[in-house]
Amino acid sequence: MTAAGFQSDPIAWYQHQVDATLPGLLDELLADVPSELAEPIRYAVLAPGKRIRPLLLMAAFKATGGEAENATRMACSVELVHAYSLVHDDLPCMDDDVLRRGRPTLHVVYGVPAAVLAGAAMMPLAVQAVGLASGPLGLSAEQSDHLVARLTAAAGGQGMVGGQLLDLRAEGRAVSPDELEQIHEGKTARLIAASAAMGAVAAGGSRKHVDRLERFGMRLGLAFQAIDDILDLRGTTDELGKVSGRDSVLQKATYPGVHGLPEAERLSRELVRAAEVELDGLPQPHDLRLIADWILARRH
Amino acid sequence: MTAAGFQSDPIAWYQHQVDATLPGLLDELLADVPSELAEPIRYAVLAPGKRIRPLLLMAAFKATGGEAENATRMACSVELVHAYSLVHDDLPCMDDDVLRRGRPTLHVVYGVPAAVLAGAAMMPLAVQAVGLASGPLGLSAEQSDHLVARLTAAAGGQGMVGGQLLDLRAEGRAVSPDELEQIHEGKTARLIAASAAMGAVAAGGSRKHVDRLERFGMRLGLAFQAIDDILDLRGTTDELGKVSGRDSVLQKATYPGVHGLPEAERLSRELVRAAEVELDGLPQPHDLRLIADWILARRH
Repeated sequence: MTAAGFQSDPIAWYQHQVDATLPGLLDELLADVPSELAEPIRYAVLAPGKRIRPLLLMAAFKATGGEAENATRMACSVELVHAYSLVHDDLPCMDDDVLRRGRPTLHVVYGVPAAVLAGAAMMPLAVQAVGLASGPLGLSAEQSDHLVARLTAAAGGQGMVGGQLLDLRAEGRAVSPDELEQIHEGKTARLIAASAAMGAVAAGGSRKHVDRLERFGMRLGLAFQAIDDILDLRGTTDELGKVSGRDSVLQKATYPGVHGLPEAERLSRELVRAAEVELDGLPQPHDLRLIADWILARRH
Repeated sequence: MTAAGFQSDPIAWYQHQVDATLPGLLDELLADVPSELAEPIRYAVLAPGKRIRPLLLMAAFKATGGEAENATRMACSVELVHAYSLVHDDLPCMDDDVLRRGRPTLHVVYGVPAAVLAGAAMMPLAVQAVGLASGPLGLSAEQSDHLVARLTAAAGGQGMVGGQLLDLRAEGRAVSPDELEQIHEGKTARLIAASAAMGAVAAGGSRKHVDRLERFGMRLGLAFQAIDDILDLRGTTDELGKVSGRDSVLQKATYPGVHGLPEAERLSRELVRAAEVELDGLPQPHDLRLIADWILARRH
């Protein structure tokens, strides 16, 4: 399908770019990986998804003056990290989920050891994907280092993995609004913030633009998690592609749980608005606004 | 203790350097990591170990013309990867070990979820450790990228994680000598080879020297695993710091299992000799020879 065919729906165009690029990129990255491991990795990464993180990277690349399409391979690096986090989150020793993206979870299909290892292998793959994408974008080694530093900080103990542990430790007990924000910032918002910031870094954006896009992503990421919490409460398993109501079963710390449903809704709107303020003054913020509005609209 | 105090035992000096550097490096790397995650990471990394991989990196740095001590922080990056692999290998869904480095395994002390997450967080930490160590060594961004690429390839699906899955898949069935070598190359030898090669890269060694040190490390790594297999068969739990005889219980693919004990012994000697041949012509190979001989002597 040509770009023209997506003119009325830029989000679908971004998703198509990512979905069309992932298989070939995985072929390259997995060339020397035993098939026993490559197969579950493909299963996890190629499952249908909204691709929100790579979309944000591409749209931030465009917002800072780049041609979105050129950032597609770089954008796949953040999807690899996200897909790995889903594999580990779903493990029996974690959230013990059996359905993800409308399919049985990885450990259900390939067993728990393969799921632990496939997830673990996807982090170095994501770093390698940054390396692979840097050359064709004409990035300097310094820029490539900077991208790897942002990706590893967002994915590691300072970000996603740390947030995931805080999330598990908060199960079954009351948490304060501050604690909730710390958990959601770590487990969700930091990778989303890094995605937006990485787009700006890859486009050679100024320090000011990179910082603004990181703040945009952090607020949008918190809103995204608040809306995810709302949907888990209200959605059906069919709509979500994962079993709904799990937060309540696991007694997770959630926005509706801490603030109540109406306040959680209000907060998500407020966070998206605060995120969009950061876009003022960027060369091409249009697609980022579209993505932010789309994320907010998901709550209905 | 001064370097002079270790003159009669360079290996103890290297180990002391690594052990003295790891706590401060972890303080830096874990500054923004929640304490719930930082604590199990420290438990895993600071457990007493032989530090073979960082020793090889430092000795390879020296062999190619550098001052070994200056490579200590860079060397800690490969120890972080190794320590993470032990945490995941010991999980109940993997080898289900309860004792490691003379202490209860991480999941026994902190629970399985914390063990999965602490292990996962140590891979990005290792990449960050390379970044932290590159500046003071005066390395260019290209050299730093090169080091990260070697580390991630050795740690990921192409190396350690892939080998670990092949190892699990081989349990309980007969494997050929070629298959055994593929498993051991992945799960053990590649990270050891990368450690030696990274030392040469960090010292600004020529392509020829880097390649020779990688081959040295690959052969030594296979010998190391063969000797580990022999020790598991013969050693006592007290000597090993882990429960002995587990390979046999788990019906693992091992050198003594595939080749018989006398041939496994002979192969380990032959591999160490073939490794040492690669050192000819390096500026300062003395310490690498010491380490290779020390690894070989462990089999008794």
